[in-house]
Amino acid sequence: MVNIRYVLAARPTGAASEQHFERAELPIQQPNEDEVLVKVYYISLDPAMRGWMNAGTTYVKGVEIGAVMRAFGAGEVIESKHPGFSVGQMVTGLLGVQQYAVENGAYLTRVDTDAAPLSWYLGLLGMPGLTAYFGLLDKANPKSGETVLVSGAAGMVGSLVGQIAKIKGCKVAGIAGGPDKCAYLTEELGWDVAIDYKNTPDLAARLRETLPSGIDIFFDNVGGDILNAALTHLARGCRIVICGAISQYNQSTPVGPSNYMKIVSARGTLSGIIVFDYFGRASEAINDISTWVKAGKIKYREHMIQGIEHFPAALNQLFTGENQGKLLIQNF
Amino acid sequence: MVNIRYVLAARPTGAASEQHFERAELPIQQPNEDEVLVKVYYISLDPAMRGWMNAGTTYVKGVEIGAVMRAFGAGEVIESKHPGFSVGQMVTGLLGVQQYAVENGAYLTRVDTDAAPLSWYLGLLGMPGLTAYFGLLDKANPKSGETVLVSGAAGMVGSLVGQIAKIKGCKVAGIAGGPDKCAYLTEELGWDVAIDYKNTPDLAARLRETLPSGIDIFFDNVGGDILNAALTHLARGCRIVICGAISQYNQSTPVGPSNYMKIVSARGTLSGIIVFDYFGRASEAINDISTWVKAGKIKYREHMIQGIEHFPAALNQLFTGENQGKLLIQNF
Repeated sequence: MVNIRYVLAARPTGAASEQHFERAELPIQQPNEDEVLVKVYYISLDPAMRGWMNAGTTYVKGVEIGAVMRAFGAGEVIESKHPGFSVGQMVTGLLGVQQYAVENGAYLTRVDTDAAPLSWYLGLLGMPGLTAYFGLLDKANPKSGETVLVSGAAGMVGSLVGQIAKIKGCKVAGIAGGPDKCAYLTEELGWDVAIDYKNTPDLAARLRETLPSGIDIFFDNVGGDILNAALTHLARGCRIVICGAISQYNQSTPVGPSNYMKIVSARGTLSGIIVFDYFGRASEAINDISTWVKAGKIKYREHMIQGIEHFPAALNQLFTGENQGKLLIQNF
Repeated sequence: MVNIRYVLAARPTGAASEQHFERAELPIQQPNEDEVLVKVYYISLDPAMRGWMNAGTTYVKGVEIGAVMRAFGAGEVIESKHPGFSVGQMVTGLLGVQQYAVENGAYLTRVDTDAAPLSWYLGLLGMPGLTAYFGLLDKANPKSGETVLVSGAAGMVGSLVGQIAKIKGCKVAGIAGGPDKCAYLTEELGWDVAIDYKNTPDLAARLRETLPSGIDIFFDNVGGDILNAALTHLARGCRIVICGAISQYNQSTPVGPSNYMKIVSARGTLSGIIVFDYFGRASEAINDISTWVKAGKIKYREHMIQGIEHFPAALNQLFTGENQGKLLIQNF
């Protein structure tokens, strides 16, 4: 039996594409002391992966050339040399883009698949869920009646941020690409405003029109022109939470927000969310989100792609915006 | 007797220059009920004035074409129809670029010229002093041992920020233009590091070299490449306080900090200082700064230009960096 994996073959300067990965077939590794062997059922595709392909260190080290591409995954323990894990246990962790992973048990998280489907622990109840939950609630502290704007609003993190903001009594506006995504936000999720940036020539004007009292909280997944437009319409005391800059990850020369001085005149603050800082508080998010899902207050979509061989092409969907919902590779 | 004043004649798109102002001679106005007539002895030249020349409103409205150019000034009450002011009282306020100002007493501040020279109330003990004091202490909350970087470090606000940071036990580095200004920072003011950006081809590398533990607080007066370089070398939990962006005020297309995502990975925050928010707490700053000056812990330089007729040319010194110390017009 072999382990099919995708390794980083070259570092992109612009967009990541299939040429930057190489398929490799290895014998399945055996676990050593304290390690477990996991059969990977789901691989999570996340915008952060583009950053991990760069050299150097930002909040984590870049992936080495020739190493398995870093990715979150979920699967089943099929062999264990760690006292805390037994065969059949479902786990998540940084399992990589591969079919079988050997990992020290210390770096794995046990998940309860009676409470929720396994794949949810890579999305709604995993890193993206925690990112949305703590990024909005801990970093921006929304108050009922405030106006919350979310970019990348139909994406995994964005759609959850807006739904939590609605639960907290906020007016919620989303920026997304295309009429289908916008209809999803207002019709399915019940948001107050959806702006299709692909069909809005003057985004700043549209924000002024639709959000007359200004933006109290801007949760940004996109950067670039969208961030810059949002900065023109901040309310006094606004909080800007930077989660990502997906419009910029593939640019060899990223652009900065030229309107950043508007943060000063609005007496605002800009900060960011790094989900790794919140691992110790994961249960808070999982409990609340699970409760909200059961109460029908949160909706969740997965965009499932069958087969690890589609990984190199699938990753790019995050940047073209083709995916609808949390993007995952199903590997069984 | 006439009142010589300078009015805004045209709005600059790039640099402000003499052509944007017009000299006017008017009869001296008489004060109405609640107003006082002030003979203006000092006119303060501040970077913010460039912003006031633009149309529209940021944190204050732009100056109207044909109106007297807005400026802080200090002078003596020579006629009063306000019960709170008598002839001979020294005051500061937004007196404009003119020799005589009529202003409602409600908008004037009485100053004590026994405690400090009148002109200091436009600098060290005025808006710039309050900006430095509250921008550093209230916005960034420096702790002993932290590394504080200041851009525009030899300027009025910057040099005071660094001196207060030294008093608070911080390691202080300044970025300034030219060897004279840098020598002033390290030799006169006793700062730990001075970087001459005009003679430093790779500013980011120089910051890494001279500030090995990273930047805990960046107080930015400059923006542009200097802000962008500082962002590459932030310490965990850094606070960035934006005071100004003097490198950008004269640009018709300002650039944003393309490295802004570094704030996220450093778990930092960016905010700004608007001194108008701190008027109610002015006495805190004036008391502390006065005490520090008397104890020899703060040094202060004024760059005095004789005669209001030099105003249009003098303003530009702020942007070329020619002035050494607080730039003022002396008008007597």
